[in-house]
Amino acid sequence: MTELRILPLLGWPEVREGDDLAALVAGSIELEDRDVVALAQKVVSKSEGRVVRLEDLEPSKRAHELAEGEDPRRIEAILRESARVVRSRPPLVIAETRHGFICASAGVDSSNAPDAGMLVLLPVDPDASAARLRERLLELTGRTVGVVVTDSFGRPWRAGTTDVALGVAGIRPLLDLAGRRDRTGYELRHTQIAVADEIAGAAELVMGKVDGVPGAVLRGLDIAGEGSAQELVISPERDLFR
Amino acid sequence: MTELRILPLLGWPEVREGDDLAALVAGSIELEDRDVVALAQKVVSKSEGRVVRLEDLEPSKRAHELAEGEDPRRIEAILRESARVVRSRPPLVIAETRHGFICASAGVDSSNAPDAGMLVLLPVDPDASAARLRERLLELTGRTVGVVVTDSFGRPWRAGTTDVALGVAGIRPLLDLAGRRDRTGYELRHTQIAVADEIAGAAELVMGKVDGVPGAVLRGLDIAGEGSAQELVISPERDLFR
Repeated sequence: MTELRILPLLGWPEVREGDDLAALVAGSIELEDRDVVALAQKVVSKSEGRVVRLEDLEPSKRAHELAEGEDPRRIEAILRESARVVRSRPPLVIAETRHGFICASAGVDSSNAPDAGMLVLLPVDPDASAARLRERLLELTGRTVGVVVTDSFGRPWRAGTTDVALGVAGIRPLLDLAGRRDRTGYELRHTQIAVADEIAGAAELVMGKVDGVPGAVLRGLDIAGEGSAQELVISPERDLFR
Repeated sequence: MTELRILPLLGWPEVREGDDLAALVAGSIELEDRDVVALAQKVVSKSEGRVVRLEDLEPSKRAHELAEGEDPRRIEAILRESARVVRSRPPLVIAETRHGFICASAGVDSSNAPDAGMLVLLPVDPDASAARLRERLLELTGRTVGVVVTDSFGRPWRAGTTDVALGVAGIRPLLDLAGRRDRTGYELRHTQIAVADEIAGAAELVMGKVDGVPGAVLRGLDIAGEGSAQELVISPERDLFR
C-alpha cells in the first residue's frame, strides 16, 4: 500500500429517473482498473425512480399515532419501507428496513429530494444497483471497478452519522483476519474489518451533504472480489452489542 | 475539495514506552499544514506505557465468574478499565470505559502487544494524548496539523469493526449541518456528521492490522478547529438507537 486517493465526483447535474449514472461517473473521472466507485444512495435511488410524493400517501392509523404533530404522510412512507419499527420517539422512528438495515426513518429522506414535497426511498436491492452500475461502467469504460452504494446512518452510543455501505459489487465488504498473526505471533481471532463501511465513510469526507457531490472514487485499495452488503448485516444471535 | 490523499506511515520500529511518536511521524512523512495525523491507539498506548502483564494481575471473584474457562486475568484487566459492563457473553465482554466509550473488552487487547503475555490498555486521556502529539509535531516540524487517535470498535447491528476516534486535537470531530440548506431549500436539521470517526475509518483502510502500519496522514481535508472526542459520546437521553 503506497497511498489511497479519494477523488470527488464533480460537476453532476440534478439526477432524475432513468439517468445513466455510469455515464455520469465516466464523464467526471477517468476510471482505472481496481478503482472503487462510491455513490450516495440518494442519486442511485433517484435514478431508479425510488421517490414518492407526500400528496400520494394516505396515512394509516398507525402513521397518525406515531406522527404526533409531524406530517403523518412521511411516517406512512417510513412504515411502508419498514420490516419492523425498532424504536420510536415521535417524530423520530428507528426502523429495520426490508434489507435488514437498522436506521432512522427506514432510510426515507426528504433532504436532497428532487422537489419539495417528495421523499427519497432506499433502493429496493442496493447490491443489484451496485452490480448494474459496475457492469455498465465496464461496458462504457472497459474498466473493472468495485462499486459501493452509501448512506449516512446514525449509530448507538456515538453522536453523529457516518456513511455505511448499503450495496456492494466487485469487492469483499468484510476483511477477515482470522488465522493471520501479528508480529508477536498472536493469532487475530474473530477479527473482521468492515472495509465497505470504512470506504463509505472515507467517500463521505469528500462528498459533503449540501454541495452536490454525489460520490467519490477510491484509488489504491486492493479489495477486489465478490460479496454482498448483506454480509454487513449481523444476525441477532451473533450480535453481542444489540 | 479537489482530492483527499491518505498516506500510510511506513517503516516504524516496534513502539516502546517513552518513544517519541511525533519524531517517528516526522521521520516517515513530510507533513504539511492542515494535515490530519491518524494514529492507532495501540502505538499511542505503548508509548505511554499503558500495558500490563497478565502475570501481574490478580483476578477478582467477578473476573473468575465472567471468565468461564478463558484466562480470568484478562477479564480482570477489562474490569479494571471499565466503568460498567454493558453485556457479557463469556468470554466476550462489552464494557463502557471510563471515557464513556462502549466497546469490546473495554479496549483491552492482547493482539499487537509488545510481548506475549501482555495486554495493551486504552490511553488514560486520548484527547490529551492527541494534544501532546500535536504540540510536539508543531515543535519538530513547524506544521500545524490535526491529530486523531483511532481504535477498531464493533457496533450493534452491523458485522465487523470500523475504526473510530478515541481522541482528537486540532479538528472539529462533528460537522454540524444544522441550518444549512440543500439544493431545493430543504433545511438539513439535526444533521451532524461524525467526521472524526470517518477519518479513523479512512486511515484504517491503509493501516491494516498485521502489517505494522501504525497510522496514516490525511491530506486535503478542511476541518481544522477545536474539539474533543467526548463530543462523539452521546448521552443516553439523546440516543434513540440505544
